[in-house]
Amino acid sequence: MSIRVNHLQPVKGDKFTFGLWTVGNPGRDPFGEPTRQPITPVRIVKRLSELGAYGVNFHDNDLVPIDATAAERDRIVKDFKTALSDYGMVVPMATTNLFSDPVFKDGAFTSNDPRVRLYTIQKTMRAMDLGAEVGAKIYVFWGGREGAEVDAAKDACEAIKWFREGLNFLCEYSKSQGYDYKFALEAKPNEPRGDIYFPSTGAYLGFIETLDHPEMVGVNPEVGHEQMAGLNFYHVAAQALEAGKLFHIDLNDQKGPGSIRICDLDRKESKTCSFSSSCLKKRGTKGRDISMPTHTEARTRTGSGISRPAA
Amino acid sequence: MSIRVNHLQPVKGDKFTFGLWTVGNPGRDPFGEPTRQPITPVRIVKRLSELGAYGVNFHDNDLVPIDATAAERDRIVKDFKTALSDYGMVVPMATTNLFSDPVFKDGAFTSNDPRVRLYTIQKTMRAMDLGAEVGAKIYVFWGGREGAEVDAAKDACEAIKWFREGLNFLCEYSKSQGYDYKFALEAKPNEPRGDIYFPSTGAYLGFIETLDHPEMVGVNPEVGHEQMAGLNFYHVAAQALEAGKLFHIDLNDQKGPGSIRICDLDRKESKTCSFSSSCLKKRGTKGRDISMPTHTEARTRTGSGISRPAA
Amino acid sequence: MSIRVNHLQPVKGDKFTFGLWTVGNPGRDPFGEPTRQPITPVRIVKRLSELGAYGVNFHDNDLVPIDATAAERDRIVKDFKTALSDYGMVVPMATTNLFSDPVFKDGAFTSNDPRVRLYTIQKTMRAMDLGAEVGAKIYVFWGGREGAEVDAAKDACEAIKWFREGLNFLCEYSKSQGYDYKFALEAKPNEPRGDIYFPSTGAYLGFIETLDHPEMVGVNPEVGHEQMAGLNFYHVAAQALEAGKLFHIDLNDQKGPGSIRICDLDRKESKTCSFSSSCLKKRGTKGRDISMPTHTEARTRTGSGISRPAA
Amino acid sequence: MSIRVNHLQPVKGDKFTFGLWTVGNPGRDPFGEPTRQPITPVRIVKRLSELGAYGVNFHDNDLVPIDATAAERDRIVKDFKTALSDYGMVVPMATTNLFSDPVFKDGAFTSNDPRVRLYTIQKTMRAMDLGAEVGAKIYVFWGGREGAEVDAAKDACEAIKWFREGLNFLCEYSKSQGYDYKFALEAKPNEPRGDIYFPSTGAYLGFIETLDHPEMVGVNPEVGHEQMAGLNFYHVAAQALEAGKLFHIDLNDQKGPGSIRICDLDRKESKTCSFSSSCLKKRGTKGRDISMPTHTEARTRTGSGISRPAA
Repeated sequence: MSIRVNHLQPVKGDKFTFGLWTVGNPGRDPFGEPTRQPITPVRIVKRLSELGAYGVNFHDNDLVPIDATAAERDRIVKDFKTALSDYGMVVPMATTNLFSDPVFKDGAFTSNDPRVRLYTIQKTMRAMDLGAEVGAKIYVFWGGREGAEVDAAKDACEAIKWFREGLNFLCEYSKSQGYDYKFALEAKPNEPRGDIYFPSTGAYLGFIETLDHPEMVGVNPEVGHEQMAGLNFYHVAAQALEAGKLFHIDLNDQKGPGSIRICDLDRKESKTCSFSSSCLKKRGTKGRDISMPTHTEARTRTGSGISRPAA
Repeated sequence: MSIRVNHLQPVKGDKFTFGLWTVGNPGRDPFGEPTRQPITPVRIVKRLSELGAYGVNFHDNDLVPIDATAAERDRIVKDFKTALSDYGMVVPMATTNLFSDPVFKDGAFTSNDPRVRLYTIQKTMRAMDLGAEVGAKIYVFWGGREGAEVDAAKDACEAIKWFREGLNFLCEYSKSQGYDYKFALEAKPNEPRGDIYFPSTGAYLGFIETLDHPEMVGVNPEVGHEQMAGLNFYHVAAQALEAGKLFHIDLNDQKGPGSIRICDLDRKESKTCSFSSSCLKKRGTKGRDISMPTHTEARTRTGSGISRPAA
Repeated sequence: MSIRVNHLQPVKGDKFTFGLWTVGNPGRDPFGEPTRQPITPVRIVKRLSELGAYGVNFHDNDLVPIDATAAERDRIVKDFKTALSDYGMVVPMATTNLFSDPVFKDGAFTSNDPRVRLYTIQKTMRAMDLGAEVGAKIYVFWGGREGAEVDAAKDACEAIKWFREGLNFLCEYSKSQGYDYKFALEAKPNEPRGDIYFPSTGAYLGFIETLDHPEMVGVNPEVGHEQMAGLNFYHVAAQALEAGKLFHIDLNDQKGPGSIRICDLDRKESKTCSFSSSCLKKRGTKGRDISMPTHTEARTRTGSGISRPAA
Repeated sequence: MSIRVNHLQPVKGDKFTFGLWTVGNPGRDPFGEPTRQPITPVRIVKRLSELGAYGVNFHDNDLVPIDATAAERDRIVKDFKTALSDYGMVVPMATTNLFSDPVFKDGAFTSNDPRVRLYTIQKTMRAMDLGAEVGAKIYVFWGGREGAEVDAAKDACEAIKWFREGLNFLCEYSKSQGYDYKFALEAKPNEPRGDIYFPSTGAYLGFIETLDHPEMVGVNPEVGHEQMAGLNFYHVAAQALEAGKLFHIDLNDQKGPGSIRICDLDRKESKTCSFSSSCLKKRGTKGRDISMPTHTEARTRTGSGISRPAA
């Protein structure tokens, strides 16, 4: 259906998708104020479609503001679904923002405060409803605030138990609602917390087997996140794949350890991706949805020298 | 004058000073909104004085908002000077905020845009006036935006020349105004830029000799910044000291490379600091003003488990 | 039984054990020749016992040279057992050297050469026999050469399968011989290989569930190895413990990422260890054998300023 | 004179040179014995010449064993000079091995033992004689052992003074002998020492100005060494160039921080090198000798998948 103008021109058949939070990122950083205007989800969908993208992904609050009324929420979702339909775009994956609101400062699923843990589960249920409404089949969990700066403040074993309870409950919710979600757990070693629990994809692979429904749960490795720990992404993806747990993949590139310093996808990473995808191909995963967030955009206030996929 | 209750109780004679930007930090981070209310400079001065601090430091806009009118500025400075006087506090060091405003997204002294470079010099002159008005004798330059994510966007040799021109001009300004400032250059390898020019204190030591007035210019090494590059802070401070260029020092602690993940001053760092200060003592620098920013506070949204020096 | 002279004096009841390869390390490094004479295993056993150690651990070739005849092997083992008995020392853990011989340059269990893979299994069986003969109940697998510098050279999914086959076979061997071993898998992100498969303890936790006898297999996290990837060791140990897989633990300390730069156990690490051991205590693992290798010794050619536990 | 078969074929006019220690490296590493036979310097010269290299570099003991008699030394040098002449190869740079012999375990120029410091100067003088005899015009100082694991063992300020005294003496020696050397100081943050003094090229730029003959002394930045500290090599080279101190350059590539994990020159690094060389070109340094060590070879025991430039 989609015709490639040249071998570098992406087409919908490539199944590249983009996060609303990356393309629409206003370029704020810890030391400075936003450098760009926000872009509406509808405009992002339109422009990405023109550029050959397959679809978009979002956190609940990328689409619906946290303080929207029910009526506002319905209107926003209606317009968004119209845009998806008008521009032939899909939403393969959705996720929850459990990190921006100050209530999550000490964790969401692993907050010491039981009220925050309950709110986290409620917020995720509503976000799963939203994702299901627009057709998402993969639900990502990235626990940006699940961690610690000071380990005296929290028992790491308790934190693991709390997160397990939350996931077990949400697996049941997905089943009971007939959502048919696959859960994909996304690791990151730190940032914004000093240390995040389950810091690498491998740690999640170990954790999944301790859940009530391990068959529903896999991983969403992100190139830059594994590289923050100096790990070889191809090795990480290969282990997940060999275990039958590679449900989703986030492609970007990273400069050095410690924090996300995303740079343009370079040949070094192309090689990583090439090994990974040759590995995918050999094992018959053709057609798997691959999400390629333009995190580059998300983290660069300047934009100079970086191709901006949508604006 | 100051009496130490016990050997861990800081007294004014220790000459510990704190940045307004650390104690008053609202706890915003790249992934989330502020978790604390701002604290007024006057309240910070009062509370730190009670706790045994010697003084405070600030960026121009920590004290005077960037959009203050001349009248507002004068009122703020008057109140602040009254507070300093009332609580027996001093301002040994001042500096310029050349990173928060979007205009600096591509650099300040090293912006490709000559108008931004001129504005940078103007803003620094006004901030030097402000510092001098409250008695500062050390002026720090930290170039948070002087760098690149994409090196095609800027010629690094040109950037060095631009920064040199700016510093040479400002040295003359300090002399012509009779401010008698010592300039202290503060290195950091990255964050917020992907890479910052002059990434370590050593790089500044090499640069200083190429200035018109090298005798006016030294360095302000920060423990965490050198440790972001995995460097041994004691070695770094020793080289600066041996070269007669250790004009100021920022004490904190850092976890790992790549980005600032400041943790509480631990024995490992106490050891670093102990070597550094034994090194200082042997060489007769007793009485040197040492600034100890509570960056810990600045970077932790939770505050859990961390002693909060002022509130 | 053992009486502590003061609260820092180790006693046998602490169950600290040391690797022969650490205490007896001759101080060779990539850039230089040995700086110390080797020390015989018997002498190490005697001296460590005097210092309050509980026992020692070894790779097969730490005790028996790779080219020893059967008669030499028997004599060495006899003398070693006599020394253990004379000095009241035990061997809780044994392991295999699968990295020093050039035959392993491309891997042992994961070598592309099937003859090397078979030799690896044979060598490990013989080393398991040796460990069992001196009473070891824990068998450690550290795959120093299982990895790659150039990923075109090996399919990471195949490597995982090869390692799984090897472990499954050796589990059967342990059972069939009545050795009753617990296997403990030890992760390290790199060094000596550019990247090592299963780079963190978490990755092994995921892998264990795919084995034929997961109940026999756990992990042996090493502080320095996890810290090479910038990970929080307490979090890593907590996940292993919570999963019932913390079979052994290697305590040391590490400076920065990328390669082992072991330093003396510092308060920062004491804190890590304190969290970890409080975590152990709460969960009723009192009496667990803890191996504390003096890797410090192993990696320092100078020895200056470092307490040398045995000589 | 030299004709390029295709745009990737190196020719002598490119002035690529290789270290004898890289091409001839036997592949020993901290965990294992050599995997390759040594290669004689004469054979290296012959083979590299066939491959389009311009010349070779060496540490004194790469060419002449440390225990060679005077007669052996003379014979070796004679044969080597014949090979250079026969194959049209030159030696633009020479250096001293001040790290392999156990006597240097605590430093060479900065050893606490004054006899070691004197021996260091003597050994360097003899190595400078050797370099001059084969035409070297650049003399490199890499202080692999000048550092510490434990800072209580050495005063870093004293170490700096000792190194300065050594260099000042050797500058005089070069002048008095009419060798006309340019000294190029090569930084590395660690490995083999826990921390090495002057950890980055920037630190040397600051140090040079404190020498008696700063005009004779510049730097030899190595890509991988700066990247071990996470630094941007283009920025590092640009500062050295802008200061007129880029006397030599070592091109390789590095994976992550902390220790040398050299990988093949990749596009990411090609980009670095491309910025650096465009920077060199613009500033009229055409014709500068560039040394390209095949460190890749030096650090890989397997050799798998890596082109081996000479054998």
